[in-house]
Amino acid sequence: MRSEFEFIDHIKKSYGLSSVGDDCAVLPKDSETDLVVTADMLAEDVDFRLKWTDPLSLGHKSLAVSLSDIAAMGAKPKWAMLSIGAPETIWNSRFLDDFYSGWHQLAERFAVELVGGDVSRVPDKLVIDSIVGGEVAAGKAVLRSGAKPGDVIFVSAGLGGAAAGLKLLESAERDADRVSTAATTFIEKQLWPTPQIELGQFLSINRIASAMIDISDGLASDLGHICKASDVGAVLDQVPFDRRLLELFSKEESSEFALHGGEDFELLFTVPPKKLDALAFGGLTRIGTVTSDSQLIELVHDGSRVHLSPMGFQHFS
Amino acid sequence: MRSEFEFIDHIKKSYGLSSVGDDCAVLPKDSETDLVVTADMLAEDVDFRLKWTDPLSLGHKSLAVSLSDIAAMGAKPKWAMLSIGAPETIWNSRFLDDFYSGWHQLAERFAVELVGGDVSRVPDKLVIDSIVGGEVAAGKAVLRSGAKPGDVIFVSAGLGGAAAGLKLLESAERDADRVSTAATTFIEKQLWPTPQIELGQFLSINRIASAMIDISDGLASDLGHICKASDVGAVLDQVPFDRRLLELFSKEESSEFALHGGEDFELLFTVPPKKLDALAFGGLTRIGTVTSDSQLIELVHDGSRVHLSPMGFQHFS
Repeated sequence: MRSEFEFIDHIKKSYGLSSVGDDCAVLPKDSETDLVVTADMLAEDVDFRLKWTDPLSLGHKSLAVSLSDIAAMGAKPKWAMLSIGAPETIWNSRFLDDFYSGWHQLAERFAVELVGGDVSRVPDKLVIDSIVGGEVAAGKAVLRSGAKPGDVIFVSAGLGGAAAGLKLLESAERDADRVSTAATTFIEKQLWPTPQIELGQFLSINRIASAMIDISDGLASDLGHICKASDVGAVLDQVPFDRRLLELFSKEESSEFALHGGEDFELLFTVPPKKLDALAFGGLTRIGTVTSDSQLIELVHDGSRVHLSPMGFQHFS
Repeated sequence: MRSEFEFIDHIKKSYGLSSVGDDCAVLPKDSETDLVVTADMLAEDVDFRLKWTDPLSLGHKSLAVSLSDIAAMGAKPKWAMLSIGAPETIWNSRFLDDFYSGWHQLAERFAVELVGGDVSRVPDKLVIDSIVGGEVAAGKAVLRSGAKPGDVIFVSAGLGGAAAGLKLLESAERDADRVSTAATTFIEKQLWPTPQIELGQFLSINRIASAMIDISDGLASDLGHICKASDVGAVLDQVPFDRRLLELFSKEESSEFALHGGEDFELLFTVPPKKLDALAFGGLTRIGTVTSDSQLIELVHDGSRVHLSPMGFQHFS
């Protein structure tokens, strides 16, 4: 069965859709500005479970995932639309009011205005489509396709926390008495992700990043997208998992979360060597180097290189 | 239980969302142009049934409903995004290829480019969110709020065909031997609606329409939206049902389809008396007059006026 990435590639190639395939589409706005737009669908029991997702955090996350795409272009979010398909049980409760309240809290922080959308009844499961439009200086959007051999690879923070949070929620650790501070941190990371808007803009305005993507599918898969779009490879010196994961999980589990877990909504980006001095932004981790070996991603492990395959989360795999 | 219109009103008022509530949101693009954006969610077993909707026509209709919103602003469509939530049965077939083929045929006709979207697995029922962006000369978008007492009310064609088509499909007339030409026409109207892009642009560029909306919920409901936004009333001299309906349905049924059926995706608009001479466009039907009686819609029936309530299709009513 083809994956969703393969389907999108197929449609893109069949119809010559040049704007499809990055975190956002980039469209001309005026002589000084480009418009970027993105849409993200979140489906109940696939992307979230109502058992452990309250409406406030779901509203927050619905916007956060799209803001993260805006961040990955180095753009500033401006407006949004929300399409909500809700079953009657949800319609007959306060759910949508609270959902919108959570959405609005995050929107206000980044001055994003809700301008439209749709509300529809659905037979069974809740589904949300989150659409955000943003702006970036003309020609300055950071694409996935700009990485060059020799560029240095960075992530904006330790990864794997969101996947660990999901695992903790699935095993109902949240309700147990022994919920540690670390567990709470990872659950927050899963339910209340923070889009890296400021960092993204810093990297585009100063032309520091040559390529960028947000971590939605996992480091291996998302780095694979950059390597494919840029026709390059990568060598990773380390797996940048969140060190706090070691309080609750083994090093192997932590690496697995970081490589293949996804949903961290941190930024993964490449920087040409001559731009490294300009990278004055806290919390960044240098994790490897871009190579000329097209689409080959290797990890230095116990002194030797191992091949890393992109087994991040795919809806259809 | 509150309706979807009431929920949108509630959120709009609670958070002061001034751009929400028309067919599209209007946003500044450059000094000469405004951007208009719209999103429409179509859910299986609510907005369509796979039993009688083939993937080609569903692709067509998914784009057509959003293009109709663009038309109702008097704008020109430019780009689109598609978010599709598909269950595995659909993913494992040619459905999405054919869906996109139907979508693309209509997109090509209006030079609309697919620039992004999302593809997601859903547990059970197919759901589509159709997003379209368009352009209109700055300040020339036709809103719902511009109707004035004395303006003349028009529709772009006889109404009720799409609702009749739905009724014919529901009663499986399509498979029966006795499907008449009229039945085919109405079924086509339901499955392959044509957005009135050229008319919409003609009305905005020449500043002829003072208010406009597309017929998605039914004449009574959609005229109600104009009356509410413009704080006016209306007197209808006639119910503009498609005369061909009389081949298969009574006058009462035909009127019911036109008033409350919806999905015709024709344009309903108001024209100031002094602009009537400029209205040189074929196929239009003059149906009544705007009054100063706020939100009171009356129909002249057998020589006397009867009150018309907006009982168009609402997802939650």
